[in-house]
Amino acid sequence: MVYRLTEARLQKDVELRERILQLALARVAEGGFAALTMQGLAEEAGIATGSLYRHFRGKGELAAEVFARASQREVDALAVVLRGTGGPAGRLARGLRQFARRAWDSRRLAFALIAEPVDPEVDEQRLLYREAYAELFGELLEEGVRSGHFHCGPTSLIAACLVGAIAESLVGPLSPPARAARDAGQPSPGLEQVSQALVDFCLRAVGAPQPEEPR
Amino acid sequence: MVYRLTEARLQKDVELRERILQLALARVAEGGFAALTMQGLAEEAGIATGSLYRHFRGKGELAAEVFARASQREVDALAVVLRGTGGPAGRLARGLRQFARRAWDSRRLAFALIAEPVDPEVDEQRLLYREAYAELFGELLEEGVRSGHFHCGPTSLIAACLVGAIAESLVGPLSPPARAARDAGQPSPGLEQVSQALVDFCLRAVGAPQPEEPR
Repeated sequence: MVYRLTEARLQKDVELRERILQLALARVAEGGFAALTMQGLAEEAGIATGSLYRHFRGKGELAAEVFARASQREVDALAVVLRGTGGPAGRLARGLRQFARRAWDSRRLAFALIAEPVDPEVDEQRLLYREAYAELFGELLEEGVRSGHFHCGPTSLIAACLVGAIAESLVGPLSPPARAARDAGQPSPGLEQVSQALVDFCLRAVGAPQPEEPR
Repeated sequence: MVYRLTEARLQKDVELRERILQLALARVAEGGFAALTMQGLAEEAGIATGSLYRHFRGKGELAAEVFARASQREVDALAVVLRGTGGPAGRLARGLRQFARRAWDSRRLAFALIAEPVDPEVDEQRLLYREAYAELFGELLEEGVRSGHFHCGPTSLIAACLVGAIAESLVGPLSPPARAARDAGQPSPGLEQVSQALVDFCLRAVGAPQPEEPR
């Protein structure tokens, strides 16, 4: 009987933890990591702040977990395209366009993930996830170099260059000043312009012929 | 008399602040931002921890100032080359090689500046300095596009791509695991290999002919 009670309790804990993470992710998507406070989140979840600290040692740990969850979703979505069908250059172009579009669709979250100044625990996750992205691009580069579709230097270095270029190209367009300018109706680069510039940049950089896809 | 005393006191404060910053910079160059503690620094400077807090509100503010000072030095050194003599492609290549060499010469500091997980105040400075680098590259791209030496998309976006690619290409080679591998005599990419890959990547990406310089 004790065993069953414990199991039920554990199950409740797992469910509560999941619910907290979902609420936290929604907060970051709405207002960035700045909007993620332990007290505010506990109130929203209808639990005592102390209970929240039972699940996450502090804001840094919680933010890092939110970061990892949101980033893993992006890595997975990118992997589907980069490991999908078609030639390497076409897959690279489609992967870049999808990544930019997904960032555009959740600008606040994307900026939070890529560049928002935040706890060092999140910086640590950023380094790890940049490696995960680089591994994906590295795989594609290896294949493309072998098949003669790409002509570039050491694939691990070039993969890192791609990851850096992609992230940094989005920082400006997704940043709070750019969002404010757009909201005020001022001209700012659109998704199509940013995507196209990024695709051209990356394809040229890896020595690929420009793809035949419509521009 | 009171005025002169105050002036002397202010001058002493300025000198102490400068000495603290120099010591702090040396610590970061030696052991990264992790080696920068208020207490350790106060001891080294021979002052009370309370006096140190009179000059810097906390570790975040101090780290941000160390970051800004070290980064400004790099921006200035890069500006000299990018705004120097020669064709745009040659200047871009020389600027990249110099940047990589300077990072290599101070690996611990370079990794701390580019990627070490640290207080959000430093993350904020990172965003600002990446913009400063992007402005420098943007200037050169504008010139190169006008003179027909570069063929690329919107220069502000492409400049951001370059900044991201450069930073990310160095994160791996400068990272603690890579340094440990080198110290253990394991093979790891050298400065020349990283520089060459970066130069090739960036020149191709901006649509420049490969430079005539010896490789």
